[in-house]
Amino acid sequence: MPQNRFSTLTVRMADAIRFLSLDAIERAGDGHPGAPLGCAEIAVALFTRHLKCNPAEPEWPDRDRFVLSNGHGSMLLYAVLHLAGYAGLPMEQIRRFRELGSHTHGHPEIAPELGIEATTGPLGQGIANAVGMAVAEARLAAEFGPDLVDHRTYALVGDGCLQEGIAHEVISLAGHLRLSKLTFLWDDNRITDDGATDLSISEDVRARFRAADWQVIDADGHDVEAVSAAILVAQGDPRPSLIACRTVIGRGLPRLEGQRGAHGGRVFATDLAEARAAKGWDHPAFSVPDDVEAAWRRGVAGRNAAAYADWQARREALPSRVRAEFDRVSAGRLPETWRDALRALRDRFAAEGTARPSIEVSAEIVAALSEAIPELFSGAPDLEGPTRHKGELHAFTAQDRSGRYLHYGIREHAMGSMMNGIAAHRGLVPVGATYLVFSDYMRPSLRMAALMNLPVITVYSHDSTAIGRNGPTHQPVEYLASLRAIPNMLVLRPADAVETAECWEMALANRHGPSSLICSRQPLPALRRPGGPENRSARGAYVLAEADGARRVTLIGTGSEVALALAARDVLQADGIPTAVVSMPSWEAFAAQDAAYRRQVIPRDTVRVAVEAALRFGWDRWIGEDGGFVGMTGFGASGAPEALFRHFGITAEAVVEAARTRLG
Amino acid sequence: MPQNRFSTLTVRMADAIRFLSLDAIERAGDGHPGAPLGCAEIAVALFTRHLKCNPAEPEWPDRDRFVLSNGHGSMLLYAVLHLAGYAGLPMEQIRRFRELGSHTHGHPEIAPELGIEATTGPLGQGIANAVGMAVAEARLAAEFGPDLVDHRTYALVGDGCLQEGIAHEVISLAGHLRLSKLTFLWDDNRITDDGATDLSISEDVRARFRAADWQVIDADGHDVEAVSAAILVAQGDPRPSLIACRTVIGRGLPRLEGQRGAHGGRVFATDLAEARAAKGWDHPAFSVPDDVEAAWRRGVAGRNAAAYADWQARREALPSRVRAEFDRVSAGRLPETWRDALRALRDRFAAEGTARPSIEVSAEIVAALSEAIPELFSGAPDLEGPTRHKGELHAFTAQDRSGRYLHYGIREHAMGSMMNGIAAHRGLVPVGATYLVFSDYMRPSLRMAALMNLPVITVYSHDSTAIGRNGPTHQPVEYLASLRAIPNMLVLRPADAVETAECWEMALANRHGPSSLICSRQPLPALRRPGGPENRSARGAYVLAEADGARRVTLIGTGSEVALALAARDVLQADGIPTAVVSMPSWEAFAAQDAAYRRQVIPRDTVRVAVEAALRFGWDRWIGEDGGFVGMTGFGASGAPEALFRHFGITAEAVVEAARTRLG
Repeated sequence: MPQNRFSTLTVRMADAIRFLSLDAIERAGDGHPGAPLGCAEIAVALFTRHLKCNPAEPEWPDRDRFVLSNGHGSMLLYAVLHLAGYAGLPMEQIRRFRELGSHTHGHPEIAPELGIEATTGPLGQGIANAVGMAVAEARLAAEFGPDLVDHRTYALVGDGCLQEGIAHEVISLAGHLRLSKLTFLWDDNRITDDGATDLSISEDVRARFRAADWQVIDADGHDVEAVSAAILVAQGDPRPSLIACRTVIGRGLPRLEGQRGAHGGRVFATDLAEARAAKGWDHPAFSVPDDVEAAWRRGVAGRNAAAYADWQARREALPSRVRAEFDRVSAGRLPETWRDALRALRDRFAAEGTARPSIEVSAEIVAALSEAIPELFSGAPDLEGPTRHKGELHAFTAQDRSGRYLHYGIREHAMGSMMNGIAAHRGLVPVGATYLVFSDYMRPSLRMAALMNLPVITVYSHDSTAIGRNGPTHQPVEYLASLRAIPNMLVLRPADAVETAECWEMALANRHGPSSLICSRQPLPALRRPGGPENRSARGAYVLAEADGARRVTLIGTGSEVALALAARDVLQADGIPTAVVSMPSWEAFAAQDAAYRRQVIPRDTVRVAVEAALRFGWDRWIGEDGGFVGMTGFGASGAPEALFRHFGITAEAVVEAARTRLG
Repeated sequence: MPQNRFSTLTVRMADAIRFLSLDAIERAGDGHPGAPLGCAEIAVALFTRHLKCNPAEPEWPDRDRFVLSNGHGSMLLYAVLHLAGYAGLPMEQIRRFRELGSHTHGHPEIAPELGIEATTGPLGQGIANAVGMAVAEARLAAEFGPDLVDHRTYALVGDGCLQEGIAHEVISLAGHLRLSKLTFLWDDNRITDDGATDLSISEDVRARFRAADWQVIDADGHDVEAVSAAILVAQGDPRPSLIACRTVIGRGLPRLEGQRGAHGGRVFATDLAEARAAKGWDHPAFSVPDDVEAAWRRGVAGRNAAAYADWQARREALPSRVRAEFDRVSAGRLPETWRDALRALRDRFAAEGTARPSIEVSAEIVAALSEAIPELFSGAPDLEGPTRHKGELHAFTAQDRSGRYLHYGIREHAMGSMMNGIAAHRGLVPVGATYLVFSDYMRPSLRMAALMNLPVITVYSHDSTAIGRNGPTHQPVEYLASLRAIPNMLVLRPADAVETAECWEMALANRHGPSSLICSRQPLPALRRPGGPENRSARGAYVLAEADGARRVTLIGTGSEVALALAARDVLQADGIPTAVVSMPSWEAFAAQDAAYRRQVIPRDTVRVAVEAALRFGWDRWIGEDGGFVGMTGFGASGAPEALFRHFGITAEAVVEAARTRLG
């Protein structure tokens, strides 16, 4: 009875996931058995029958993307990738689940070379990454055509991901954009860590997706055939699809199955024995029967072999210029000439010497870069007007995938996390623009960009109390500190148009982490004269105006306050106090310089005073605990900008006074 | 024709809002005319026909709550409150719209004495506050009965608020909780700052609300009768209601009406003239015709006079004990004996000397406080098990409003912002518990709590890399810095059970701002011996172990790392180096001490070394730029806790070494 034998093998393919997961979780002493056990059949259906991938070439650009959004179920992913034959996840890695130094981390950490497309765990982030990946695919398909780019994006998602607010932002936007190649597989197990989902939700999730113009398909999540058929239905619709897979959490673990405790409960040796007995699985721990392994290899590598070969043949047949361009963007490399456009702009800004808002300058730079970098992909959450980062780009829409500007709507968090997905996908250079205060809405995704080493650039306007009358809700004071506090985040606050161009160069050159470019709404006077080719901002801080005489005072400013420091210098110099002004667009870049340079720029034996229209928090590192600081001490207020700066004492006079009192 | 005359008066009541708003916005030079003009009729319907309030007693505890969630439309609120006769908003304040020092800020700032229930502006926050207020009302009604507590909560909401992720979190939860007295009035104008809403959304908003079990009612937003009838329908349903008010943005401003530019565009004198001509409004700027003003006064104060008098009579008739209790919670005062329970616990912890996770200690404290403070209202977003902050409390549900624990679901942002609404409402003491990494999801609402001076307490567990195997996504490193960077946020990281009780006392005593209590998952050894009645943590930092001999080294620790500092002290003392250990549970409290105390606790002429399993960011303020720091330098990793601490060098040996190298 081949049909039966086939069914049995399918069941055992799923059980192989279960037992690898249970063996690893038991050995580690903790983990989350609920999802690997509850979603084993879903994984078999997707990976062995549909997912386009090549375990021997994990970074195949045209592979389907799979995101485990419920990242706590990491053993599901590791087991599947091991069974599928990804060389980076041999059994030794499964054994070392959650050990320091292994690849099998508690939550998946991005490693496309292993088959892991995104770092997931904080709920909601993974599905939003997936939506970004689907956007990248659609845009690249419009650019390079379906022969080169034609893949799907799947995300496995739990109730937690769907309850988080970011979920609705991306559900709404994905439906609007009709991302037909996007499929969410919902592990509908009706259990969360607290217990039954009906403790906290009675929403009709299916109706919610339909309201956002998704196709919704129901399937028995423990029936491989049913899930497989649902995936086919998903593939045939012009809308994104939700496959609601009814599952039992912890299925196959008798003590916990269907229970709250299955989510993250401890698994003991007795549980393993019970599970093995219940399933008739008599194979040793950390082993896979040969026929099951063979079936997995057939289902993944075998099934995809021809598609991969055909794709490579099509790629090889391309005109060499097109192939080189495709290979370049797929590798995430910028065009060789990208710096030229920026430097030309910088030199023009220096020659013009015009006072301009740095957000406007950034917009002009993005316009120029969108010529120089054809894969630049911009967007703003309902702030096209104030940020001007659309320029001449046309919109990426449901009807037109060739656009390079995304109207994210009033969805900052979606933007942040989708940009992470776009960057993780590779092929596009995502740039997002919003107000600095709204970075808090994106903060969970900013952290993930830093953790994933993704080259995501966010441009923030309205960077200080200088925005005036909109009041303290819209006036950042703690944001520079809180962004600078994120490891691997490059924070850039340029002082004029020239520095804005230089900071943009730094942001683009930063290929292993996110950059935050902090811009003003108000015009910033031109401070930098035409000079040599050197990017002075790239060292993080530099002497903009050296002291006239042996330096006694060092004034340090960032962004709009560098001009105040210069004005204060004039007063001090007029009083015979040799004073230098240091412009410090980036703490991180300055911290990376050698000690000699740092001491030369900010000598400790001078009086040090910093001025920044923000809190002092963190500044003592550069000015010492006795250094002077002119800035904010709390939240802002609503009023005219000049009135506010006087009210809060952010003036050249205050800088002079702070220096004088320290000269003794 | 009295009917006509009445209609005309109604139209003029709305136009009075329009012209006050336009006059003020034109005079200020900027502002957002779109909402005040587009929602004028909605405001007339709600305020003059339904809203229960008393302009002469703005803080009447049983008043209906109104939240302007689209806070950029602040002039709508100011105009309405002025017309309704709120004494704090005379015409002089309307004239001074957006001037420094006025009450008429760019965005509304909480001032219940003026009729302003919440600070709004960052989109989505206001509706979430409103959901919290509705929860507070339902809970208080269950406690004190409908004679004292029976009011409704209304929020005016724009497309922006509904697109933000937090909106869906609270829509879903409000439907689940069947908050029947909650009504959203949606300004459905199909325009956002970018242009037509269909640039970024094609979702069926009505279907989305229905999926979450809301009643949805359509109304012509420019027809006062229609909106008023819809409000009546909303009042008659057991579900929360969305009234979808079809409106024209900027209605009445010929040049901009129905246009994108109406949202926040500049209004000029010529616009005023055109608008006056179009509407036949020939009254001077900043004036209200007598009959219109009289109609507003009748509609608000007049209509509510009897209800207010009856309510006061019912209150007066209460047994004095009940009345006193009601007055107490309504004023936001804690019961006089609240400290007793805490101090008893603290003394017991000191006597027991047991090593315990501080999150477990906090849970025990909350259990005790929930006896001592009957208005304590706890909750956690799907982390009841790990935080244990439910204790013996039963759940607040659709069926049982007497509960004092809210299952927020996997919705941290909703929790943060709903707690703000609960605190702004007054009557309950909101406490929320989650993991420290998830504070990023709540960050926009944490900032609002600080800005609104609201006594909101959040308890965070899993506070460092010590959580181990769940890996860097769940290991906070930058969170202490980013919370400490928020002005008016009291951050508390206790070192043992005794300090946990002391920090809880500080958090509860902090009635004018939020507190973040940072707790460990792992057990913390008991460090504090039985002592006197003094709350030593209250000074922010104190000498836990004085040096044996003339102090040469000061080791400063927080939370779980204080024990490491003590171990390091043992080694240094054994080497003959007099070393003190300072426990520093709160930077903010320490910064508030006088300089003499600060110098005494952390003398600058000693070698200073801080140890905290987090980044150094901000620490230079306390240890100087040459101080030693033992902690994290970047993100964490997945592994066993002990392995991680060795790997990252957070050990007593490293503390000893950092001190030794600085002793020279």
